[in-house]
Amino acid sequence: MSEGEALMGGGRIRLGMVGGGEDAFIGVVHRIASRIDDHYAFVAGALSSTPEKSARSAAALGLDPARSYPDFVSMAKAEAARPDGIEAVSIVTPNHLHVPAAKAFLDAGIHVICDKPLAISLAEARELETVVARSGRILALTHTYTGYPLIRQARAMVDAGELGDIRIVKVEYAQDWLAEKIEDSGHKQAEWRSDPARSGAGGCIGDIGTHAFNLAGFVTGLEVAELCAEMTTFVPGRRLDDDVQILLRYANGARGSLWASQVAVGQENGLTLRVYGSKSSIEWHQTEPNRMIWSPLGRNMEIVSRNGAGANDASRRVARIPAGNPEGYLEAFATLYSEIAQAIKAARRGDRPPAGVVFPTLADGMDGLAFIEASIRSSQSGGTWTRL
Amino acid sequence: MSEGEALMGGGRIRLGMVGGGEDAFIGVVHRIASRIDDHYAFVAGALSSTPEKSARSAAALGLDPARSYPDFVSMAKAEAARPDGIEAVSIVTPNHLHVPAAKAFLDAGIHVICDKPLAISLAEARELETVVARSGRILALTHTYTGYPLIRQARAMVDAGELGDIRIVKVEYAQDWLAEKIEDSGHKQAEWRSDPARSGAGGCIGDIGTHAFNLAGFVTGLEVAELCAEMTTFVPGRRLDDDVQILLRYANGARGSLWASQVAVGQENGLTLRVYGSKSSIEWHQTEPNRMIWSPLGRNMEIVSRNGAGANDASRRVARIPAGNPEGYLEAFATLYSEIAQAIKAARRGDRPPAGVVFPTLADGMDGLAFIEASIRSSQSGGTWTRL
Amino acid sequence: MSEGEALMGGGRIRLGMVGGGEDAFIGVVHRIASRIDDHYAFVAGALSSTPEKSARSAAALGLDPARSYPDFVSMAKAEAARPDGIEAVSIVTPNHLHVPAAKAFLDAGIHVICDKPLAISLAEARELETVVARSGRILALTHTYTGYPLIRQARAMVDAGELGDIRIVKVEYAQDWLAEKIEDSGHKQAEWRSDPARSGAGGCIGDIGTHAFNLAGFVTGLEVAELCAEMTTFVPGRRLDDDVQILLRYANGARGSLWASQVAVGQENGLTLRVYGSKSSIEWHQTEPNRMIWSPLGRNMEIVSRNGAGANDASRRVARIPAGNPEGYLEAFATLYSEIAQAIKAARRGDRPPAGVVFPTLADGMDGLAFIEASIRSSQSGGTWTRL
Amino acid sequence: MSEGEALMGGGRIRLGMVGGGEDAFIGVVHRIASRIDDHYAFVAGALSSTPEKSARSAAALGLDPARSYPDFVSMAKAEAARPDGIEAVSIVTPNHLHVPAAKAFLDAGIHVICDKPLAISLAEARELETVVARSGRILALTHTYTGYPLIRQARAMVDAGELGDIRIVKVEYAQDWLAEKIEDSGHKQAEWRSDPARSGAGGCIGDIGTHAFNLAGFVTGLEVAELCAEMTTFVPGRRLDDDVQILLRYANGARGSLWASQVAVGQENGLTLRVYGSKSSIEWHQTEPNRMIWSPLGRNMEIVSRNGAGANDASRRVARIPAGNPEGYLEAFATLYSEIAQAIKAARRGDRPPAGVVFPTLADGMDGLAFIEASIRSSQSGGTWTRL
Repeated sequence: MSEGEALMGGGRIRLGMVGGGEDAFIGVVHRIASRIDDHYAFVAGALSSTPEKSARSAAALGLDPARSYPDFVSMAKAEAARPDGIEAVSIVTPNHLHVPAAKAFLDAGIHVICDKPLAISLAEARELETVVARSGRILALTHTYTGYPLIRQARAMVDAGELGDIRIVKVEYAQDWLAEKIEDSGHKQAEWRSDPARSGAGGCIGDIGTHAFNLAGFVTGLEVAELCAEMTTFVPGRRLDDDVQILLRYANGARGSLWASQVAVGQENGLTLRVYGSKSSIEWHQTEPNRMIWSPLGRNMEIVSRNGAGANDASRRVARIPAGNPEGYLEAFATLYSEIAQAIKAARRGDRPPAGVVFPTLADGMDGLAFIEASIRSSQSGGTWTRL
Repeated sequence: MSEGEALMGGGRIRLGMVGGGEDAFIGVVHRIASRIDDHYAFVAGALSSTPEKSARSAAALGLDPARSYPDFVSMAKAEAARPDGIEAVSIVTPNHLHVPAAKAFLDAGIHVICDKPLAISLAEARELETVVARSGRILALTHTYTGYPLIRQARAMVDAGELGDIRIVKVEYAQDWLAEKIEDSGHKQAEWRSDPARSGAGGCIGDIGTHAFNLAGFVTGLEVAELCAEMTTFVPGRRLDDDVQILLRYANGARGSLWASQVAVGQENGLTLRVYGSKSSIEWHQTEPNRMIWSPLGRNMEIVSRNGAGANDASRRVARIPAGNPEGYLEAFATLYSEIAQAIKAARRGDRPPAGVVFPTLADGMDGLAFIEASIRSSQSGGTWTRL
Repeated sequence: MSEGEALMGGGRIRLGMVGGGEDAFIGVVHRIASRIDDHYAFVAGALSSTPEKSARSAAALGLDPARSYPDFVSMAKAEAARPDGIEAVSIVTPNHLHVPAAKAFLDAGIHVICDKPLAISLAEARELETVVARSGRILALTHTYTGYPLIRQARAMVDAGELGDIRIVKVEYAQDWLAEKIEDSGHKQAEWRSDPARSGAGGCIGDIGTHAFNLAGFVTGLEVAELCAEMTTFVPGRRLDDDVQILLRYANGARGSLWASQVAVGQENGLTLRVYGSKSSIEWHQTEPNRMIWSPLGRNMEIVSRNGAGANDASRRVARIPAGNPEGYLEAFATLYSEIAQAIKAARRGDRPPAGVVFPTLADGMDGLAFIEASIRSSQSGGTWTRL
Repeated sequence: MSEGEALMGGGRIRLGMVGGGEDAFIGVVHRIASRIDDHYAFVAGALSSTPEKSARSAAALGLDPARSYPDFVSMAKAEAARPDGIEAVSIVTPNHLHVPAAKAFLDAGIHVICDKPLAISLAEARELETVVARSGRILALTHTYTGYPLIRQARAMVDAGELGDIRIVKVEYAQDWLAEKIEDSGHKQAEWRSDPARSGAGGCIGDIGTHAFNLAGFVTGLEVAELCAEMTTFVPGRRLDDDVQILLRYANGARGSLWASQVAVGQENGLTLRVYGSKSSIEWHQTEPNRMIWSPLGRNMEIVSRNGAGANDASRRVARIPAGNPEGYLEAFATLYSEIAQAIKAARRGDRPPAGVVFPTLADGMDGLAFIEASIRSSQSGGTWTRL
């Protein structure tokens, strides 16, 4: 991932943001990610839910006050009208605003980088299909973890048959920050995530279960045919699920399980993927993302190090610094932004993205919502096997 | 676990063995386990399925030829008749002989130490209930992993409420030695384990799934109310399951999952237990059994070291050497033998076992078979939730 | 480390760079680091040793061609003369140019951010003393590893007496990239690092030994009184040391050792610090920088997680994202840049840096060179104890 | 390590013990180790320093009262006179009694298994040379750690040239049980270990430094030519060293370091060995002894698992149970006992030990004392390089 490339293809991409003002968490992450490889210039925003907060946030971030907007509708309109208007927008609001905002910008001819889950329902997500199609613009979804070099390594290994036939997939994403009912004491992040109106019908499953689901699919390329879900709300009075345990049947005959929890005390952000094939297996933990265990049948286990001796092309392509110097979450996020940047720059000249460039899109967003809704159906029916 | 105690209570216990001759694996382990703390003297056996092999095995192990028997029936009879006859017998045959052998010895007034699973069906196991009751003898089941000091630590912590209300239980036991169809090429261990006539109706679930089930129950004390099981045979032509993925509903409202596999490439003997409560969680891996992670909510994770600064009485009681010097599988097994020895020595004088002594018994064996059979019913019905 | 602060204090700092053009490694790292928290605008450079390469590199990075200079002398002069000239410069050349370049910019009134080691000799470094003093400008040294949150945590813990009296310090920095004589086959980084004219009299000791030395001092605050060094060149024909093993006597009576190697096969970038006090110890590995082991005497070991439950103020101040999402090397480097930025912004208004801001400066650079030279004296005299 | 072999070669070896009674630690360990593989029958002892305690200890262990002796002199004499007298004796006393006891038994024609260090001085150890030679008996030294399967693996790998030329050896053995002055409060183990009259001139260096020294030599086969030692007593008032840091120059040009400490808070029993060659390196930690990292230059690191897919013959020979089921310290100790048993059984029939059998002997004991004494000389002279 040569920094030199950053300014090729017509220079930095003019970027706006919806959400991400004061009190927000993920907006800062998106902005850092957009800066790391220098593909973007952040120039406009509708950063908060009130005009005052929006303006204050914009000032703090050094935006031109003329390009700080009270809402995304006026922003999309005004920016589309400017000769130096934004080419892309990051949508980092609570979930219920993803689709309305995405529509506004796509219809204004502006590429969209949207946080996940894509929508509050599959039906709502489907509305985007025609919008995206007619706009000819990119809709990218920030499933961050697909940006990790060793996840790229694993995906390429599966694709090359190095694991043989995939038999078993174990994915989990466990946290503990909702182990107590903090949504009652003014914790903004907890508040909207436990509110069905802003989150959609899924709590934990939407917030992090979809990441786990996406990651397993990204690496294995396998399609889940059916699932059996047990969704639980452990914290009394909480309005959405805070723990999800799911059995998975894949279309190819593989079997698997997915666990997502926000009440697993001691788990800070435990995203873990294990894939077992007939020839070898891989094991990766986000908390230590620069190493992956690769176990070929009948031989020693091996430790694959990011950018190390055994790194393949797919992972080297998105690694920045020498092996042994750790990269982390922000770099994975930055890789997503840089992949999208390459697609946007290709689009500037009417091209398709260069070979190897990959990032989650509308299809992934819809798969994620289909997963959420099938899980809810399964769980609500007492735990029956349910087709996606 | 003072060695000095070994010879108290009337000296070494005279021990016999059924199975465990040439080509056997687990018999050696039982014998080493019986020697470590010096509570037993091994003096008689029906070690193999043919009289010649039995005699040869007995000779190799230094048994008195007069006490090497061609079969367990004659052994039970003859030993019961001797004034210096065995007081206890270890049954380490394939599963289908467990119950017949156990009956013979119990009826002869001899304590039984039986490998798991207890029987080839719950119905067969039930036959033992009256036999055990009328015999007044001990029936112990070698769920080895209950002997690990940190498993005792975890059990005592749960019991003392240190984890709060248990919410989530994750247990897995993954191996890869059956990733290929080695039962076709003369591998004795694989052969009988994949033969329903000798193993019972469960393959992987009986061989190691029951260990995982037992361990979770031993530590948490929780009762599984219902389960939903997905049992798979990945290796073509194999006659029993080689992978099992199960969702668990506990009677107290906790949720969990159990995974057992013998085709998980790269997993040598990956028995792992994680228990999440409202106040703290524990995480333990059999591959590194001398450390356990304890995570209290809102504080640093802690590393509990066997016999180390934070060891509680329940774990210290069964630890032998200072922290930092690892104990392993054979010591866990030896602890089981020593716990049983204390019960036998108490029985010699008509007492109950001393406080703190604990080992799996008939009830655990029946629970294990109920678990196997409920899993099979669930899986065969397409994955419906099934009561135990 | 609030991003909001980035633009306070007068907006982004105008930054230039000397070195860091084509083929360079560390220049890219500096530029990413300067962007992450958005305190800097990179606007000028003398990026390479030839005017053509400089210009090409500048173009690739989007610099105004008028501000791409053929050498640092003309750059310092021209930038000082511009009303919008750079306020700070990053010097990322081979070592022999650090001091000449630093002088040029300091004399031009421009703050200097210099890679380590500061100079090719202590004598040369001393020349900077008066230059820095008369300039009133900041000279910062990029000992990257001081930017890691858990290193800040450890430093604050030592300072607060949580470790008690420091008794033992073990620091190592091991790599393997010079295990073979790659300087002969056109590897640029290896070439200048093994050339005394460009590196100074120390090879491995200057390149990474100084990092280890600095890190131990940064965390413990202890002064090394004497050392005994064994410097070795394992690869035949290499002109500088590639392995250094040193015993350390601290002024307070503590004892320690430092190992730096570039031929330790299997070590990618193994920087490790362990500090043992009378009350507790800490252990930290750069390869897994988001966790630190803290062991209080007579209690369980604890795992301190970056930004986690047990993080102290000093580490929280420089952490960006929630615990469990790893930060890495680039973020540590960015923290250094942000600390320096706060000092520069304070200098803009004639203030001292805010409380808590800390970064290596001239004194650290001179300590590092004193360490290199004492080590060389010790080693060349056959390994005698030598005062720093 | 077939259990079947245990009784071959003439049946169990009659074993006695000197020391190891009440309050002792290591005696229990020796007895367990002697039982695990069933090569020995423990039949006689002079277990304590007073006749009463000896008798009480003997009774507790089930010895024939006639074979419980008040002292080792009478024991050697009486046992030598019995037709069923002991063939071997384990000496597990404080260090100052090792040589006197060893002499008594060797002169009585009894093999000796002696704890380390062999003597309280090199001069005293030398006295044994003629005694051993004229006795024709075995003198074995229990450097336990040589019994670990992966240590055997590493030794065989070095021997086969798989590491290439050894360049760097890093060995450490760190504990914390003497971090405070517990010898003042009746801690028996601490008491004699910090008493020069019973320990010899070395404290930490004799107790554990010699283990580290032995282990590095056992694996690498390299000879230390010179050393530079820094011995420290951190705990005020303690009479012997409690921390030792040593630089090593090997005869082949390799360089290394050894650290032994009993005040390193948080280290329970941290014996670690790392060996770096020109082709590959190995890294092993006693706290997790069933795995070793093997790093071949330019390839992925590999995890060698005891008895796993990549185990070599030398390690398989001494492993008991399948990979993934951990063996520990007691099994390593048992391996030592079993190796010695094979030599004793060979001696019964006038043979040399079978190929592959290896255990530390007099020569290792003398090397260890030479190491202790060179370290003391070096340290007392202010840290000069000193030949062994």
